[in-house]
Amino acid sequence: MAATRSPATYAALLERVAEIRDLSAAGSLVGWDQEVMMPPAGADSRAHVMAALASVTHARTTDRELVRLVGTLDGRRARLSPAQRRGLQLSRRLVDNATRIPADLARDLALAESRGLETWRAARAKKDWKRFQPALEHMVGLKRRVARLKAGKGRLYDALLDDYEPGATIATIDPLLDALRAITVPLVQAVARSGVRIDTAPLVGRFDVAAQRQFSQAVVEAMGIDLSAGRLDLSTHPFCSGIAPRDVRMTSRFDERDLRGGLFGVIHEAGHGLYEQGLQPSRARSPLGGAVSMAIHESQSRLWENLVGRSRPFWTHWLPKLVALHPQLKGTTVDGLWRACNLVRPSFIRVEADELTYNLHIILRYEIERDLIEGRQSVADLPERWNDGMAAALGIRPRHDSEGVLQDIHWAMGLFGYFPTYSMGNLYAAQFMEAARAQIRGLDKRIAKGDLHTLREWLREKIHRHDQLYTAEQLCRRVTGKLLDTDAFERHITGKLREVYGV
Amino acid sequence: MAATRSPATYAALLERVAEIRDLSAAGSLVGWDQEVMMPPAGADSRAHVMAALASVTHARTTDRELVRLVGTLDGRRARLSPAQRRGLQLSRRLVDNATRIPADLARDLALAESRGLETWRAARAKKDWKRFQPALEHMVGLKRRVARLKAGKGRLYDALLDDYEPGATIATIDPLLDALRAITVPLVQAVARSGVRIDTAPLVGRFDVAAQRQFSQAVVEAMGIDLSAGRLDLSTHPFCSGIAPRDVRMTSRFDERDLRGGLFGVIHEAGHGLYEQGLQPSRARSPLGGAVSMAIHESQSRLWENLVGRSRPFWTHWLPKLVALHPQLKGTTVDGLWRACNLVRPSFIRVEADELTYNLHIILRYEIERDLIEGRQSVADLPERWNDGMAAALGIRPRHDSEGVLQDIHWAMGLFGYFPTYSMGNLYAAQFMEAARAQIRGLDKRIAKGDLHTLREWLREKIHRHDQLYTAEQLCRRVTGKLLDTDAFERHITGKLREVYGV
Repeated sequence: MAATRSPATYAALLERVAEIRDLSAAGSLVGWDQEVMMPPAGADSRAHVMAALASVTHARTTDRELVRLVGTLDGRRARLSPAQRRGLQLSRRLVDNATRIPADLARDLALAESRGLETWRAARAKKDWKRFQPALEHMVGLKRRVARLKAGKGRLYDALLDDYEPGATIATIDPLLDALRAITVPLVQAVARSGVRIDTAPLVGRFDVAAQRQFSQAVVEAMGIDLSAGRLDLSTHPFCSGIAPRDVRMTSRFDERDLRGGLFGVIHEAGHGLYEQGLQPSRARSPLGGAVSMAIHESQSRLWENLVGRSRPFWTHWLPKLVALHPQLKGTTVDGLWRACNLVRPSFIRVEADELTYNLHIILRYEIERDLIEGRQSVADLPERWNDGMAAALGIRPRHDSEGVLQDIHWAMGLFGYFPTYSMGNLYAAQFMEAARAQIRGLDKRIAKGDLHTLREWLREKIHRHDQLYTAEQLCRRVTGKLLDTDAFERHITGKLREVYGV
Repeated sequence: MAATRSPATYAALLERVAEIRDLSAAGSLVGWDQEVMMPPAGADSRAHVMAALASVTHARTTDRELVRLVGTLDGRRARLSPAQRRGLQLSRRLVDNATRIPADLARDLALAESRGLETWRAARAKKDWKRFQPALEHMVGLKRRVARLKAGKGRLYDALLDDYEPGATIATIDPLLDALRAITVPLVQAVARSGVRIDTAPLVGRFDVAAQRQFSQAVVEAMGIDLSAGRLDLSTHPFCSGIAPRDVRMTSRFDERDLRGGLFGVIHEAGHGLYEQGLQPSRARSPLGGAVSMAIHESQSRLWENLVGRSRPFWTHWLPKLVALHPQLKGTTVDGLWRACNLVRPSFIRVEADELTYNLHIILRYEIERDLIEGRQSVADLPERWNDGMAAALGIRPRHDSEGVLQDIHWAMGLFGYFPTYSMGNLYAAQFMEAARAQIRGLDKRIAKGDLHTLREWLREKIHRHDQLYTAEQLCRRVTGKLLDTDAFERHITGKLREVYGV
């Protein structure tokens, strides 16, 4: 196809983008396999496979005929429908992002991502920062090169952020996260001063893992995940990968001694999974197909995890089912379980953090990675910066780097600019949930009766089914009537903590 | 890479072939996933992904720079080492095979393979030949187009055969299979006349599937499969896929009512797996990397399955372990189990056939597919031809097409020319095993003591580690001192049946 000259029609653009999407899907699948299925010794050859896929995807995306086609169609924008114009805009973005990166860099990045993942895995298992440091230095070097090629006159970090959150910049994120910190820090202090002790007994102890998996699967199916169009597997680092709207793969991990990680992890990933399954299959291979942004994606997982899964109405319905599978929980009340789910306590591991302190973990990572990419932070000094940052934000200091700077997979895989979308997702989640409560009569009562379907359909209707037809800004305005801010989250979290901690 | 002009060196060739190999590995992995992991609803989008991979692989393999490079190096053959000359020969083969196929046909084939697989799956489950017929007609049409493009003045079927068994032709296979039939048919008749009844009680009944898996895994590990460089999963149609020498994936299926399918299936696939794991990782991405041919591959699986797994020495060691896992087998003797493993009885399903009648299943498929591709057989008449052929060869007539023409995955996936390599593999297996017995002192005694390692190392040394350095013919001569014939198989099978059936 690369050699033929196609007529400059929108249909020709669709055909070319479809193939690029197919190649990206192959890359996603091969990446999923690397984390979930690949035998350990396969890592070496896998890095080459990932690099080759990146290389051919890059070649097809920078193909001269495609560049020409996008240019010609741009000159005839007036003749296109609004949806086609948005499709063209997204295609231009795809093509521009690729053409700014030389082929060898695209390949080197893929190699570094795949190898970085394996090096990180080994370093983290051995709590050995020094083992990971050179791989991360290499990666930061590559990403700074990418940023310089993409940034133009803009800031380096903004150029990377744009890969995950189109339109977001340091200038838009800093105020949001500053406001979020200003809400959070006093609450953390107030909770500490309150002297209230939450009984975590319902969630910590000994829990049969098979029973945990059974419960999680029941919740996921009630949420509306279609397992004939998806999978639920185990992996060290839970994630959700949408290979296609009808092939969505979620992972989780279970801990015999603690219900929380498995349970809320599965609900979280299923929130992502519902979004992926709610995208339109007929659009999946088109420029419009796919999620709006990582923050919108994260809003879906956090909405289900925190706004639903950590709510009283949810447990009103689900507690008896949990008790049936874990008989030692007999006698636990909905109120007791709900309080246990909402314990606030500074801790080391982000993915296990409570709803309040979680955002402080993100702000720390955001500031570090921003400075790394902007050239104001060396990789060598990361552990110290991390540990000092934890002490300042949460008053605790990691005992080793695996509960510190080595805990996250993101930087190993070159995901710089990804972290802030987690906190933005928390803010979107609260704002969307307020809108849902305003628009769905008796939503909490429905959830208390086990009806998760109504909320799911609302999300599908308002958010999922639009794919990338709207930008994050446009979508937020359509769904909630205003742009993203911290108000809804503040109302949500202060309301909850007033009840739980009396603060 | 496609756009740059590289120096015409062997190193430049290696680099280009490596990337093509990486893309093929991606295709293998995505194909493995489709059969083993993909949720059913993912099939539609998967077909596009397979087609896109085929398309980019084809583009890289037919890249003008690569074609030029192969041509230039061909003109300087004298300066290359013998291994490099073989590498060049294999590269030319790779490039020639691709350049004869236009890009759209390569893409259509991949689409048809992926869709054909899903159509076949559904048709087979519903015993509905009519559902599959149009897909197969489409596939036969595409493969005949391929054959015409590749055949030159040769025969159409030979052109396809060459994809799986380089060097083999109708002219070389017909005499081999005719000789094999001449050995087999009188033996089948003699067994029927013998009146001897084999007691299959040790293998048929009720067997805990978890215990079956445990036993199979123990055998596979004793054979020397490294599960840190491979996987053992479940699938409807057992197979082995070598993504890389350090990432080899085998599948199996277990039947609660019958030990045979699971047990011999796993040994068979592990035989393939040992070959893949015995290839040299350092050569995996080079032109020399990979298996010699499908018949040599099959020789490895059949050697372990039939020459080892169905032998008395094997069971001398393994019977007590089997009894420990299936206590109802207490009292079974080695001789009784060995006889049960060697029951000869005409049956419908190839993969469940005994060692003797198996080759008649193959000969039937070979003759049918040869005639299909040569244009002497219509797809519409296949069920009749199949059922008549079964009646003529084995005296039994399928009751429905799922135990007839719909049973195999091969044609659905476009694998025409593959079937005869199964019987050639049986012949190679017997010939290799005779050589092993002659060269390894006390081989049977070693196996009876549970030592499978010595045989494995011999195979690795003589066969696996050479990758494609030698052709099948050259390899056979090096290992056994002569070309492939039916003599060793005839000695093996007549010897065994004399003992079991007194014929």
